[in-house]
Order: sequence, then C-alpha cells, then structure tokens
Amino acid sequence: MPYVYYNSWKSDYKKPFGAVQPEEKVTFQIDFHERQVIEVQFIIRKENGVHEEKVYSMRDIGEKRFSCIYTPHEGKGLYFYYFVLKWQDDHGKEHTAYWGGSPVKGEGQLYQEQHEIIPYQLTCFAKEEKTPDWYREAVFYQIFPDRFYNGNADGKVNAPKRNSFIYGDTRDTPLYVRGSKGEILRWDFYGGNLEGIRKKIPYLKDLGINAIYLNPIFQAASNHRYDTADYMKIDPVLGDEVLFQEIMEDLHAEGIHVILDGVFSHVGRNSIYFNYDGTYGEDQGAYQNPDSPYYPWFTFSEYPDKYASWWGIDDLPEVDKSNEAFQDYIYQGDGSVIDRWSDVDGWRLDVADELPDEFISGIRQKLDQYPEKVLIGEVWEDASNKIAYEKRRQYILGDHLHGVMNYPFRNTVLDLLQLEKSPKELARRLTQLQENYPKDILFNNLNNIGTHDTKRIYTLVGEDKERLKLALSFLLIAPGVPCIYYGDEAGVTGEQDPDNRKFFPWENIDQDIFKHCQQWIAERKQNSTLKYGDFVLFYTDDVLGMLRFTDKEYTIYMINPHDVEKTCHFTELHFLREIPLTEKVLKDIFNNLLIDGKSDFFVTGKI
Amino acid sequence: MPYVYYNSWKSDYKKPFGAVQPEEKVTFQIDFHERQVIEVQFIIRKENGVHEEKVYSMRDIGEKRFSCIYTPHEGKGLYFYYFVLKWQDDHGKEHTAYWGGSPVKGEGQLYQEQHEIIPYQLTCFAKEEKTPDWYREAVFYQIFPDRFYNGNADGKVNAPKRNSFIYGDTRDTPLYVRGSKGEILRWDFYGGNLEGIRKKIPYLKDLGINAIYLNPIFQAASNHRYDTADYMKIDPVLGDEVLFQEIMEDLHAEGIHVILDGVFSHVGRNSIYFNYDGTYGEDQGAYQNPDSPYYPWFTFSEYPDKYASWWGIDDLPEVDKSNEAFQDYIYQGDGSVIDRWSDVDGWRLDVADELPDEFISGIRQKLDQYPEKVLIGEVWEDASNKIAYEKRRQYILGDHLHGVMNYPFRNTVLDLLQLEKSPKELARRLTQLQENYPKDILFNNLNNIGTHDTKRIYTLVGEDKERLKLALSFLLIAPGVPCIYYGDEAGVTGEQDPDNRKFFPWENIDQDIFKHCQQWIAERKQNSTLKYGDFVLFYTDDVLGMLRFTDKEYTIYMINPHDVEKTCHFTELHFLREIPLTEKVLKDIFNNLLIDGKSDFFVTGKI
Repeated sequence: MPYVYYNSWKSDYKKPFGAVQPEEKVTFQIDFHERQVIEVQFIIRKENGVHEEKVYSMRDIGEKRFSCIYTPHEGKGLYFYYFVLKWQDDHGKEHTAYWGGSPVKGEGQLYQEQHEIIPYQLTCFAKEEKTPDWYREAVFYQIFPDRFYNGNADGKVNAPKRNSFIYGDTRDTPLYVRGSKGEILRWDFYGGNLEGIRKKIPYLKDLGINAIYLNPIFQAASNHRYDTADYMKIDPVLGDEVLFQEIMEDLHAEGIHVILDGVFSHVGRNSIYFNYDGTYGEDQGAYQNPDSPYYPWFTFSEYPDKYASWWGIDDLPEVDKSNEAFQDYIYQGDGSVIDRWSDVDGWRLDVADELPDEFISGIRQKLDQYPEKVLIGEVWEDASNKIAYEKRRQYILGDHLHGVMNYPFRNTVLDLLQLEKSPKELARRLTQLQENYPKDILFNNLNNIGTHDTKRIYTLVGEDKERLKLALSFLLIAPGVPCIYYGDEAGVTGEQDPDNRKFFPWENIDQDIFKHCQQWIAERKQNSTLKYGDFVLFYTDDVLGMLRFTDKEYTIYMINPHDVEKTCHFTELHFLREIPLTEKVLKDIFNNLLIDGKSDFFVTGKI
Repeated sequence: MPYVYYNSWKSDYKKPFGAVQPEEKVTFQIDFHERQVIEVQFIIRKENGVHEEKVYSMRDIGEKRFSCIYTPHEGKGLYFYYFVLKWQDDHGKEHTAYWGGSPVKGEGQLYQEQHEIIPYQLTCFAKEEKTPDWYREAVFYQIFPDRFYNGNADGKVNAPKRNSFIYGDTRDTPLYVRGSKGEILRWDFYGGNLEGIRKKIPYLKDLGINAIYLNPIFQAASNHRYDTADYMKIDPVLGDEVLFQEIMEDLHAEGIHVILDGVFSHVGRNSIYFNYDGTYGEDQGAYQNPDSPYYPWFTFSEYPDKYASWWGIDDLPEVDKSNEAFQDYIYQGDGSVIDRWSDVDGWRLDVADELPDEFISGIRQKLDQYPEKVLIGEVWEDASNKIAYEKRRQYILGDHLHGVMNYPFRNTVLDLLQLEKSPKELARRLTQLQENYPKDILFNNLNNIGTHDTKRIYTLVGEDKERLKLALSFLLIAPGVPCIYYGDEAGVTGEQDPDNRKFFPWENIDQDIFKHCQQWIAERKQNSTLKYGDFVLFYTDDVLGMLRFTDKEYTIYMINPHDVEKTCHFTELHFLREIPLTEKVLKDIFNNLLIDGKSDFFVTGKI
C-alpha cells in the first residue's frame, strides 16, 4: 500500500482549522508517496445540497504533496469530503484507494472500497455567534430550586400543593412516590424557594460563581416543574412574580446573571392549557372544551382521552410547535412568555430535539430584540451533526442556539477519571468536537460534569475525593462555560434521579471540596487564557493535557487519572494541533515532569 | 314430634338470666308435652372440667313442665348444656330426642341425633368486674394522634422523623408510600400532636365527651406507633413527657379521663429493644448484640436475621410474653411501663389474642394497685367464648379484662342500617351477647361503630346522613361505654386504612351531624337508664328496639332502618326478655306508632 497522510487537525493539511463560513477558502493538502501517481482527487458533497458530489483534481505541489482550495459555495450546512488516490504500479497496473475520516477523525485512514469510506465533516456555519461578555466570562451554578434552600424565617414550605408530600427533614434522601404501575402518586417537596436563593447570594458570591442556570420555576404540579401549568406564573411553592423580580434585581446587583429553563415541547396535563382535572374551570382548557383557545395546541387522536404526549407520558401532553397560536404565546406575539420574563439573561431550551429548527430560530429572533441574552439548548450529543427525527438539526449553524449543554465534555471527563479510555482517545474526542463546532459555539457551550439528569460526579468517581477535585478543575479549565451542579462543590453524592436531587447539605458542606472549587473558580475568572484562550489537547500514554492560550499567555493543565504517579517527559507528548510554544519552553516544563497519582499539573506563562 | 319448649332468655325457663358465679344456683325448666314421658334429663359439661358430662334427671313439676337446679361446682369457665327427652308412644315404642341451642341461642331447637346438638353456653365468672364510676358514666372519644390537631402556633410538625413525609395540606387524603413488594418505604405524617389535643379541649367539652382513648403515643417510627421504639418516651413528633403530664392534668381538671393503647405483643424493629438499624448504638439491642438484656425477649430461629414477628411482618419483632424480664419491664417490676404512666386512667390492650392470659392478669394485678383504672382488650368477637391459638381465653371471667372493644355491637349496627339482616336476627344476636357476658362485662365493653381499624361508618352507610345519625344515636343508647371515633361526629368519610385516618376537618365540620352527636351525648350523660339501666331487645318485622330501665325509669329507643315509614303496633312487638312495663304503658306508646323512614323513636318514662 502506498504511503498517504492527511490530518484535518494540522494546518499543514487543512487550513483553516475546523468549521468555516460560506465563501471562506479552505486549503486541503495531502501527502501521497507513490512513484507513478495518476491523479489525486478531492471529493466533497454538501448534505442536502444541489449537487450530488463535486470532484476536484488536486494539484501536485512537489514533495509528494497535493493541494486544492475549496470554497463552500452552497452555504451553511454540513459538507462531507474524502480523497481519491489513483496510481500505477511497476507493472503498469492501475490502482485506486481512498482516504477518509476514521470514526475519530483528524488523521483518518486509507480505504480500499469506496462504499466503506467514512468521510470527513466540514461544518459551514452562517454566522459567528458572539455571546455577550457576561456569558463568556461566566461560571454558572445550576440550581434545582426545590432542593437548594428554604429562605422562609420559619422554614415552612410556601403554599404546599394539594396531595403533595413534604420531606420531614432536608437531610432525607429523595424518593418518588409511585403506584403499582410506576406512576407518580404524589409529588415530594423539600420546599426550597426563591427567597432561599436570595438568602444564599453571599454563599454564591463566596464560592465565586457569577451566573445561575435555574431549573424550571413556573407553576407546575411536580417538584421538577417540567410539567408547566402556567408559563406566566412563578410556582407559589417558590414565591411569586413580584418576589422573582426583586430577586432578579438583587442577583443582577451582585453581578449574577440568570438563565431559565424553557420547557416548550410539552405542558403539564393539569395546566391552564390542557386542564385535565378541571382545576382551571369546567369549560376551560383543551381537555375540557374543544372550543378552548388552547385546543389547537394539542393533537388528539380521540378526543379527549387520546392525545400526543411526551414519550407517551400521559401527564405531559405534547404541544404542536408549528401551531402559530402557540408560537405567538411563547415568543412571537406581544406579551409572549419571552417578553413576560424579559429581565432574565437567557434561556436553556429543554429537549431541543423536540423543538423544530424554526421554533428555535423564532425564539432566538425574539430574544435578539433584547440586549445581552443567550439561548442554550439541551442536546446530549455533538450538536453539529445531530439527527433528530430523521432530520439534521440546524442548532449551531447560526441564528438558532448560541450553544448547547456539553454532555460530550462530561463523558470525556468521566471516561478519563474512571480509566475507561486512554488519554489519546479522549484528546482526540475533544479535538473532534473542536473541529466540528464553529469556534464560538464551542466556547458558548455550557459545560457540565453532572446535572439534574445524570448521576452525581462524586458517586461516579467512586466517592474518591481526589478524582472529584480533578473533574471540577477540568471543568473550570476547559473551553466553554463551566456550570457546576448545585452541591457538587459540597461533596454531595447521588445515584440517578431522584437521588441526584438531594437537598443541599447546608450543615455538612465538605470544606475541602468547597475550597478547591472556590480556588479554581477564582483562577478561571482572573486567567484570560481560560476565559478567552484557544486550546489544544495533548496526551501521553498516561496523562491528558490541555493547553489554553491567547496571544500573550498560556496555561498548561494536565491530569494524571491513575492511582500512581506518572512521568511526563517532553518526548512523550503528543499535541493534536500546532501550539504557540517553543521547544525550549516545553523542554523546561516537561523535563521528566512527575505528576502524582490522582493529581494534576498546572502552569501558566507568557508567550 | 312432641311439643317441647325452652328459652334460656326467659326466667320461666332459666333463672337467673345469663352468666353466673360459682356456687350460684341456676334453675332450668323445660316444657315437654307428651302423654307417656319416660324421663327428661339435664346434661351439662364444664369445658376442661374434671367430669366428662353430668346427667340430672329433671323433676316433673306438673303442667307438663320439668325442672332442675344446677350449681356450677367446678368454678369459673364455660359450661355447655342440653336436654334429653325420652317418651313412649301409643304403641309402646320408646323415643329419644334432644333440645339444644340453635346457632342463635335463646329458644333453641329440637335435635334427633345426639351428635348434632349445639349446646347452650352457661358462662360462669369468678368475680364481678365493677369499674369505677367515671368509666361507667363515660362517653369516649378515640383520637388517632397524628390526625387530630397540630397545636403548634406556627403549625410546624415537631421533630419530624428522618426519612418521613409530611402532608402538604391537612386536607390531603392519606396514602401509604409503598415499594414494589408492598413494603412501607416512608411513613407519612400530618403532624397532629399532644398540644393539639390540649388546644381542642374546648371542642371536646363542647361535644360533651368525658374520656379519651388515645391510639399509641410512645416513640415509634410509624405514624400509627404500633411499632413501639421506646415504651418510656413520648414520641417527639407528639411532644414530650413533661408536656404529656401537663396535658393529663389539664384533661383531668376538665373531667376528661384518658386510656392509652398498650401494645405489648411486639415492638418496632427500630426500637431500643431490637435496634435493627443500629440507631441506638452499635452494640445495643437484641439484633446488634446477643448479650443485650433485651435479647431474651425475642425468638430468633437464626440470629440475627430470622426472628418471630407479628403476622410475619419483619418490622414488628414479636416479644416472648412469658419472658420474666419482659413482664418485669411491662408491669411486674418497679418502674415498669404501667408504673411509668400511672397518671393515665387505663389501658386498651392491643391484639389481646396475642397476649397470654397470665400476661393480661399480670397487668391487671399491677393496675389494681392503683385506684380507678380500667383494662380493656382488643377482641373482635364474643370474648366470652373466644378461642385463640387453640385455647379458650379467660378474658372476661374475672381478674383479667374489665371489658373488650365491642365490635359485635358495631356489626349489628351495620347489619341493621345496611338492611343486611332482620331486626329479629339482630335483636337475638345482641341478646345472645347479653347472655354470654357477665353482666358487668357487657356494661364495661367499649362500644364502637368504627375505629382506626375499620372503614368509616359514614362511608359504610353510603354517606347517608340520616343513617349515620341513627348509628350514632344507637351507640349512645346502647349498654356498654360508647366510644366515638374522632371525626365521625364531623361527617368524615373513609374507606379502609389509610383512608379511615384522614386528618380532622377543622374547617369543614358538618354542623348537623355534630349537633346530633352533641344532643345524644348530653342525653346519655343525664339519663340514668342509659348509663346504668338493664336492657331488653325487642323487634317487629321492620324495626329494632331497645328498652333500657332502672327500678324507677325506662327509656325506649327504636330504629326504623328502612327508607319508608313503618308502623309499629303493640301486637307486633316481640320482647326477648321480661320487661318491667305494664301492658297499659305499652299500649299507650305503641298504639299504631308510626316511625318515619331512616328515623328513630325515643321515649322515657317512670316505672
């Protein structure tokens, strides 16, 4: 087989790195060592484009290197490319081989058969998605409101819902109260509330965070409030609209921004819209009255008892997001939900996969009428090439989402600390994301190492405090906006829901973990490379590293996830992209560097 | 067949009526109309007695009547008797027949075959069980403490237990929080407490009751507290020992007596005695330490995880009631449980069937050292002939219980109001109880029409308010001490446990029902025939009646349970025993008396 080499992560081979905008020239170069080259072709196809495939003959530029320049003329979207290599052997026989992306892209691999090729992805985005400075500089804290703090002087729960349970003690472990068919019989509340968040502003300031992602706060039946009963009201268990406005002012005065959870795919069955149980009046709501203004929001296959619902959960009737009245209600019309809560700094769209692109862009358009707002989506995978309901999604190509919740980042941290994957594989995985995402998007992503939908990080690392600390440090070092799930900084453990939603242990905060978080948050906030810097992943056999850098400074961060100390010599380093550091600097740093077991290494310097 | 007649309820045939004491002469007479009588025998056998059977030849006293006098020489216990009738027919052929009690006794029936005879029961009791006046004159109110009233000014629940649920609203319906195997996962509390009872003394006084039967109040894990954790402590959710003493003083000052629930058959698994979960220290309790002083209380088949428990419920390890250390702890020793709570006015022994007779008599002996105390047992059937674990129980023969919870009375009320049985059958059923029980016992029984262990009376009568009122009136008219289950006077409904343990509806008391109760309680308290009077049941085809009387006065009470009015003429009345009223008085009262549907008739007079 001939020697072929291409690496989409190196500027020698592809320039510029990563995603591009339409009409932006991209240079591709490939090495092909064969005496009798017939032709090297660059093949590219835009998904859903006008052309089936375009074939470019690459120019021989000497030194066994072939080059072409391509401009994505067909506008935003995903382009897929590979190379065709044709040569004649010493016997005059013609051969053809192909170079495409391997499952982890970058270097790619040689293919014998055309139908086997996994092509490279070239993301073409319509628009840079600059987010406001407050967001780029933010360290977020995710609060599940029922489980944070009860700010009432007497500790009583505000306005408990009929037929709900209150935990006897905030130290109790959460429990779903289910019937024999697994259905929820009663919702369980600890009684955390908005006043509780206000009372804990000093704590949040002390920790150092400067933004909050709030799980749903609108009126609903459940404790998680993803079953909205009224988008225009604060749940009375949490407080009321006046209080919310006051608290928003207090938080803003302290430099803390807030984004809300926008749950627009479905509503609660017992809502003013659906009104299953008749709470809102005998003739109100779609279930009670087909003449209800909300009736067209829903899809009944047999009125009133058979209707589309989220994942078949009767409690959550699905809304037809293409219905104009619903769009008006949520964002389009005057006094829409987005207008109503215009004092918040942005939204996290729940189950973005369930929201049509047009619905998301509609929200975005509305939001752009206000200054300094962000729109983040709940997407669990690489959002650049996510297919949902057989449709490639437009999430991050411009004018839709600013960013997504970065679960792939979390998976990487876990695989590293649980020793499931090699540093090499994980460095490649993150670099692949870096390549696929428009640069802004990657820096806009809301990174996490755990949320209300996952097991707790502390539990997943076997309650190993050192590994927990590494996860937290990495979160605060990495590009993208870090978001700490309430309690992770206090040493809270938890298996899957509901165990991951324990009440915050105010009397039992792990000071060691807390101080660790505090320190790294401070570092993040004062270190420009961490807020604004580009990044390059690197690795040795044992250690994963990340270089963050601006024009002037750099930060090197490395994690040894193993139980025992590892050396990390200069010669063993593999950087996945070019770096702006001289060999001398690297040699000085990595001169038989020793990193203790379950420990990290951190250094900053001038460039 | 020959004409034979005997009726153990009529003094013409048996004298005295009902149960007797040893050495008390009893006269039996039987009518036997046959020309050639050979012999009439009276056959009697004491259960577990020294003799198999005793045979007495009855004396012909003329008028075709035969008589004998029997004295129960063999002491207290149950005697069973029947009659043998021998005669010769006109052809000289000899015949034998038998007269025994039918399933409902009294008149009995003729039997052809000896082995088919159901004999009559003659109860012989050792001792009159006079109870203190306060008890004989009491109208009880049963309080399930968690569900009555929270007396805290702020409405908060005292000292909620770890991993328990508090109801969000006292109007919520009770719910067991169960796992997939039906096991209780969390206990649910409304937070009623002792202070709540104190605060509601004015309500209780207004209703008119003058005694309380309190469901368990000692420290326990559950809301019902039948799983005792510490017999010496008040459950902190309810209050503490000092508060309890204060409240006892307050209640006594208001003339309200209190009996407690004595739960001595088993303890809670998480108790200071068993200490399954180690709450009380790592080496404390029988489960944690075989050297624990409590270890001998329990019966382990495999230490520590296999142990005898109440009805196989792991949560309730059974106690060996024959263990002396346990007896010392409960009643025998100084500072026993009975001593510790000597300011209460008596005890209701939970699951008396599970307590050996010796254990019950031991408690009684201890209790008799204090003045004016009563001991009532939870027995669901006719306690005079109850067999539990293949042993005839001694409950009511003297020096054991003063009385039992009268569930047969409740069944009678239900069968009447649900039109399940005829007034005739029900009159007979109550008269049979009257015959079997020593007279004092019957007047000592704690009558109910519903408890924490049954569906609510209001629900059982189909939420028919008129029928509910009849049940309440009958309870307050009947011999035995009436006990109103909290909330029945307020119109509370409820299916079986936990629905029968709703929180008291303080904001929604049915004033109509309440006033009805209040009025009949007042009648009970001022009417000597109801407190002290003997009674005779009577009936017509449609109506059940009860005559209560002393030497000087009488009260007649009748219920028409049907939907439509019924007449009740003098000639249609059937009295099951002799009555002290003249024919003239009866004629005056029952001269085509009309009783409305679902209504009653009440009249008093002088004798």
